[in-house]
Amino acid sequence: MTEKNILLKIAYDGSGFHGWQRQPEGVRTVQGVLEERLTQLCGVPVQLEGTSRTDAGVHALGQCATLRGEFGIPTERIALAANNLLDDVMILSAEEKPEGFHARFSAAGKTYLYRFAIRPPVPVFLKNYACMLATELNTDRIAEAAKFFAGMHDFASFQAAGGTPRETTVRTIFGVRVHEGKATDPAGNTYETLELEVGGDGFLYNMVRIIAGTLAVVGDGSIEPEEVAEIIAAKDRVMAGPTAPPQGLYLKEVYFNGEEIERRYASKI
Amino acid sequence: MTEKNILLKIAYDGSGFHGWQRQPEGVRTVQGVLEERLTQLCGVPVQLEGTSRTDAGVHALGQCATLRGEFGIPTERIALAANNLLDDVMILSAEEKPEGFHARFSAAGKTYLYRFAIRPPVPVFLKNYACMLATELNTDRIAEAAKFFAGMHDFASFQAAGGTPRETTVRTIFGVRVHEGKATDPAGNTYETLELEVGGDGFLYNMVRIIAGTLAVVGDGSIEPEEVAEIIAAKDRVMAGPTAPPQGLYLKEVYFNGEEIERRYASKI
Repeated sequence: MTEKNILLKIAYDGSGFHGWQRQPEGVRTVQGVLEERLTQLCGVPVQLEGTSRTDAGVHALGQCATLRGEFGIPTERIALAANNLLDDVMILSAEEKPEGFHARFSAAGKTYLYRFAIRPPVPVFLKNYACMLATELNTDRIAEAAKFFAGMHDFASFQAAGGTPRETTVRTIFGVRVHEGKATDPAGNTYETLELEVGGDGFLYNMVRIIAGTLAVVGDGSIEPEEVAEIIAAKDRVMAGPTAPPQGLYLKEVYFNGEEIERRYASKI
Repeated sequence: MTEKNILLKIAYDGSGFHGWQRQPEGVRTVQGVLEERLTQLCGVPVQLEGTSRTDAGVHALGQCATLRGEFGIPTERIALAANNLLDDVMILSAEEKPEGFHARFSAAGKTYLYRFAIRPPVPVFLKNYACMLATELNTDRIAEAAKFFAGMHDFASFQAAGGTPRETTVRTIFGVRVHEGKATDPAGNTYETLELEVGGDGFLYNMVRIIAGTLAVVGDGSIEPEEVAEIIAAKDRVMAGPTAPPQGLYLKEVYFNGEEIERRYASKI
């Protein structure tokens, strides 16, 4: 057997996990559950390198992770075999990559979804999957404010304390798209939703949740859309809105080709 | 203030609760959370009498409970005030009832839903809200088998050990309806579903889940529809199918008027 470098694409419901990153025994994390399952399957200790360390309660539609080693199972069988005993996390695909490829360091960009749901009379079944709001949000105001995020900026106003220290708080946001929609819960209730899709080359700690919380206070009329430009310029966390709760956040997709994610936002679709 | 007897209608997502019934401190139950909240609101210790002691993971669209006492809050304000600080359990309505009315003893019948979802490639977001199956179920076979449950029978084959001891295992099932449908999860994935709606004057411990598990083995071809008649006649739990998991079960509605639930099943809609 030769050493392989395998890229996994992964989806999970974050409501049953204390985030992505492995924790001491007894704390259920996505990385912990997957490494345990893959170690059983592959017959050797498996360590994953994930693209994004999602927090407790945050979901993923397309998290990525790499694993390297000599494995006793063909790459194309990994997803099916692993998923057999998994339920709230699943491997969507497994693909061999060249030496040197790394889920985090090779990533050129990511997109996140943030979902708000407007609170209907009986919202009990969506509370882990959206930020439930009692008041409506004005989509036009949010769309106007969202434009200020696009481009390369110092996003110090949108960084929470407590993350990994970073060399710089400058990031490029390719765009923030705003969609009105509907969601149906498991009991068949339908909700009005407002979804933000944020694409960028990288994100500071809690950055998407602070962007979402800031756009929510634009949408409910507490601040004006133009104030977002001032908040960015201030480079001061206290100027921005609240950190929206984790259950509304979904890591949607990881891009390993920078042109691909730029094209996606340039196309205006 | 005079003593009131108030009927609450309640919905909850069972995935965050260790069932309905109050447990020692530190164990989160629906009754415990509601009593604590209502005690704060009403200014006097509140005890609830629920219609159904749903198990851990079981959901409710229309659980009922009564509370009696002299309360410092108008009945019509209870739901809104209580829901203000609740999220995965909500009071849908509060209504004054005559002396002697009791959520459990006055109930004439109940309906439950049981939902199966046919496992698609990425089922991570529904695992708390349906029984996920990897194989399709034959709806016609299930509908044929479901007819055998209707009527007054000794349902000893459909009673799990461990419930409250009952004087008799005879119950009347008004009907078992079978619906094919679709469910959409919070990530927007769509699933084929098969739902059972079971109406009866009362249910033994785990009865709906054993009916669902038995109909699933009819639907996947493991046993023939006619064998259900033999299983009922045997009055022996080992003859029936497995107990389907709790997350597919929803307490749908409680009827306090026996004619109303009988009419509902007689109408064949």
